Amino acid sequence: MSATMTAATTANPLIAGARVAGTDVYNTAGEHLGSIYDVMLDKATGKVAYAIMSFGGFLGLGEKYHPVPWSMLDYDVDRGGYVVPLTREKLEAAPMDDSDGEPDWHDKDYGKRVHDYYRATPYWI
Amino acid sequence: MSATMTAATTANPLIAGARVAGTDVYNTAGEHLGSIYDVMLDKATGKVAYAIMSFGGFLGLGEKYHPVPWSMLDYDVDRGGYVVPLTREKLEAAPMDDSDGEPDWHDKDYGKRVHDYYRATPYWI
Repeated sequence: MSATMTAATTANPLIAGARVAGTDVYNTAGEHLGSIYDVMLDKATGKVAYAIMSFGGFLGLGEKYHPVPWSMLDYDVDRGGYVVPLTREKLEAAPMDDSDGEPDWHDKDYGKRVHDYYRATPYWI
Repeated sequence: MSATMTAATTANPLIAGARVAGTDVYNTAGEHLGSIYDVMLDKATGKVAYAIMSFGGFLGLGEKYHPVPWSMLDYDVDRGGYVVPLTREKLEAAPMDDSDGEPDWHDKDYGKRVHDYYRATPYWI
């Protein structure tokens, strides 16, 4: 079933979560920034909050994960990937959580800092 | 990273898409109905539209897939799975798409029929 749910079927108004993960991400200059590791869903509102982007690293070593507001991603049919209006530097300098692993999603201030940084409309509005 | 994004961390306001997939689904009577195969995301609004439930079948044979409106699912900490207010019969009799494989998500009428059937609030409202 999932074989037909490809990211390439862009005319499709819906997309399967499993298809979003692994999709490449480029910036508007055409530079390959990384790929999508997963999506984070807001339980209360049923909205997609973030795409977790993975970038950098080699064979899984030194890879970085950043939550990027979902509203920033546009799917580009020709490229077969998402496009974000970000430079690699902007992405690398994004606010990190203090924790070593997963960001503390309870921390509303962290979410606000991330959205402010990218000037993105918060998913909770 | 994903190891910490378990469905069990229910206090967490966000959940990773990959963690939703594979989670068991029960009804309010405690009957195990099946599991979640994937989530379908609405590109335009960034909302989770459906959980695709898989049920029936044996070792992948004869398995059925049904889109269930996301708004119907409640996560039950103790059970470690989602609970829906549905009987197995209700689920099995849900409106199917005419196509053999994936439902035609372009068909607004199909989405409306599904939501009407479950008396669920449509994600597009």
